[in-house]
Amino acid sequence: MRACLLAVGSEMLTPFRVDTNSLFVTEQLNTIGVDVRMKAVVGDDVAELTAILRSALEWSDVIVVTGGLGPTEDDITRDAVARVLNLSMSEDEAVVSRIRDRFSRRGLTMPDINRRQGMVPRDAVLLENANGTAPGLWLERGRTAIVLLPGPPREMKPMFEAVVRDRLAPRAGGRGLFRRVIKITGRTESDVDATVQPIYGRWSSQDVPISTTILAVLGQIELHLTATAADRASADRALDAAVDELHAALGEAVYSVDGLGLEAVVAGLLTTGHLTIATAESCSGGLLSSRLTDVPGSSAYMQQGVICYSNESKTALTGVPASLIEAQGAVSESVASAMATGIRARAGTDVGVGITGIAGPTGGTPEKPVGTVAIAVSALDEQRVRTFQFFGSRDLVKFQSSQAALNMLRLMLTKRR
Amino acid sequence: MRACLLAVGSEMLTPFRVDTNSLFVTEQLNTIGVDVRMKAVVGDDVAELTAILRSALEWSDVIVVTGGLGPTEDDITRDAVARVLNLSMSEDEAVVSRIRDRFSRRGLTMPDINRRQGMVPRDAVLLENANGTAPGLWLERGRTAIVLLPGPPREMKPMFEAVVRDRLAPRAGGRGLFRRVIKITGRTESDVDATVQPIYGRWSSQDVPISTTILAVLGQIELHLTATAADRASADRALDAAVDELHAALGEAVYSVDGLGLEAVVAGLLTTGHLTIATAESCSGGLLSSRLTDVPGSSAYMQQGVICYSNESKTALTGVPASLIEAQGAVSESVASAMATGIRARAGTDVGVGITGIAGPTGGTPEKPVGTVAIAVSALDEQRVRTFQFFGSRDLVKFQSSQAALNMLRLMLTKRR
Repeated sequence: MRACLLAVGSEMLTPFRVDTNSLFVTEQLNTIGVDVRMKAVVGDDVAELTAILRSALEWSDVIVVTGGLGPTEDDITRDAVARVLNLSMSEDEAVVSRIRDRFSRRGLTMPDINRRQGMVPRDAVLLENANGTAPGLWLERGRTAIVLLPGPPREMKPMFEAVVRDRLAPRAGGRGLFRRVIKITGRTESDVDATVQPIYGRWSSQDVPISTTILAVLGQIELHLTATAADRASADRALDAAVDELHAALGEAVYSVDGLGLEAVVAGLLTTGHLTIATAESCSGGLLSSRLTDVPGSSAYMQQGVICYSNESKTALTGVPASLIEAQGAVSESVASAMATGIRARAGTDVGVGITGIAGPTGGTPEKPVGTVAIAVSALDEQRVRTFQFFGSRDLVKFQSSQAALNMLRLMLTKRR
Repeated sequence: MRACLLAVGSEMLTPFRVDTNSLFVTEQLNTIGVDVRMKAVVGDDVAELTAILRSALEWSDVIVVTGGLGPTEDDITRDAVARVLNLSMSEDEAVVSRIRDRFSRRGLTMPDINRRQGMVPRDAVLLENANGTAPGLWLERGRTAIVLLPGPPREMKPMFEAVVRDRLAPRAGGRGLFRRVIKITGRTESDVDATVQPIYGRWSSQDVPISTTILAVLGQIELHLTATAADRASADRALDAAVDELHAALGEAVYSVDGLGLEAVVAGLLTTGHLTIATAESCSGGLLSSRLTDVPGSSAYMQQGVICYSNESKTALTGVPASLIEAQGAVSESVASAMATGIRARAGTDVGVGITGIAGPTGGTPEKPVGTVAIAVSALDEQRVRTFQFFGSRDLVKFQSSQAALNMLRLMLTKRR
């Protein structure tokens, strides 16, 4: 089955934004054996949208349109689709009343323009939107299914997973693509490739062929494995074996084979070990504690954190002696260690982390350039400290600092288990 | 002038890659007054490429196709374009000999398949490629210019700048697109639209027409204004007036008209006021302090922050009486206020912020559901506290909490000035 994806919104035709909804929709469609053959971004203009819809109807089995279902004049998807399919539109009272209820639950009155979101083309099936006002719409024309979904990812994604995929799967019926992601941190892309290329090179010709893509993203490397198989069970067998083989070759550099982020992996280690943690951050400015508390249930392990930007606050909040800062400099392994042990002692936790560094763009010196970061972890009866040299802008240095701290935590807590 | 951009290559139809060439081409076209109305990614398949080319020829003044000019079977752009325009192709001896020279300069023999890159449709103008083997091609059909460029950015970009832009500019007639972004927080999309639609509705017909797009992004609304003008000076005059008019209508809900993020706006207010700040966060877990320290130079105002997740740490780090937490609950305006004044007193800063709430997914009660967040700001001689009801997942509640706190800070510090 051949699919065409259309994203509607003039903001995605500026030099500043890309459409990312299509990546999610592509992955979902691939899983049920639908092949995405074209995707397009169209502005908030009926002329171009109708032109591309007419062209796509000539060859597509599925057309997924995201965006343009809002309440404003800009939102032209309903109109354009009704025009191309030559369908009349009418207001659906049930939809309008659901939207009105949604507003009143928040103590608001529905603005009159939101009635536009209740306009439904004849014969359309409504797709419920649990996270927003615009319902999705499902239409059919000949062999082609046309699916209209809202643009905001937090509305679109759950709708696709809850409703659209299952409606499409029986129509697709072919060999699906099944994926796994192996996440690695602490090694370079070329280093990882040199290790794994001899392994995955063999997989393209096996019964259930697997293709492998290496992706270097911020602070980590991802290996994307894609198996082509008639069903999930045979894909899973081939992928399990492939993941095991790569995991064995890469060792502890692999932090996740099940999609979990690094903060979630560390959260799991803390939770299962019944361990508590406290953090003391300078250059990362609270990003480590924010990531640790992104994970649901973090109150089980996260006791407290301090952001000690000034030298005085390092002393006041973690008890680092002013003389140590004076002697070694605020960015030093001794200060990072004193921050980690100090915050751990004050909070009475099992684990303490100290991060101190130079995020930039200013503040660097020849001996300690921008990106120099000392990180210490004090966990139970062990203490580790390391100095890193990160590159890139301020936000990249902050992120890499939090990533390196999480990875030190992961390695220490894994070893203990 | 209306443009359609086509990127050819099946690798950009996977869930892992996006087409970024189009961002560069859009920016280049916009400055010479060409409006990108649609962009599409097409696989290495003649059927879909010819379908979209036929559709684009109906309405486009310019079609820019990147990719698919290589020497292999997969490279189908030349064939598809010749087929749609009904042009015969023949081998251009001069092109083939340039490619052969390029190989021999590297001590290599040109593989026979590279002759494909010398196939040129009748009437095509050759565009020199200084960094690769595939020449670009320029064709015309009626009012439409069709430009074929290689896919690798290091080949495509210099060709666009050196040759294509200057060939297109005279056709475009010199009117360029110039942009502004107005950022708003604390109001809903439909509310903003109801206010501004009567204003921007008038701008489409003025001397320097301005089009307006509303974009709801996490925790804020953006208005994108695009003026079409012969030169930057007249665009700036029209845009300045437009921004002023919208700013007056929306009032203090507007936080930025110059592209700055909310944290940078607050950073500017703190810096110019020579004010210092300390934060006490519970449910936002350090995200507020992380955003405040995302701004270069934040050490001038950021003194310290604490993340007090447990009740005990609220008392230990900010001095909130345990009896107050007992009496009012940890998520209450009294506790938020005590956190703000407590951290401010302990850190000796001009400003203190306290955030306490329920990020979810668990921990909600009928009286205080998930998403209930109390935020207090104590700044100089003023204190404000508010309770918000946010919606969405844990990370959305965290982000909205930080956004609301920054906005309270902004409003209080702006009023003072």
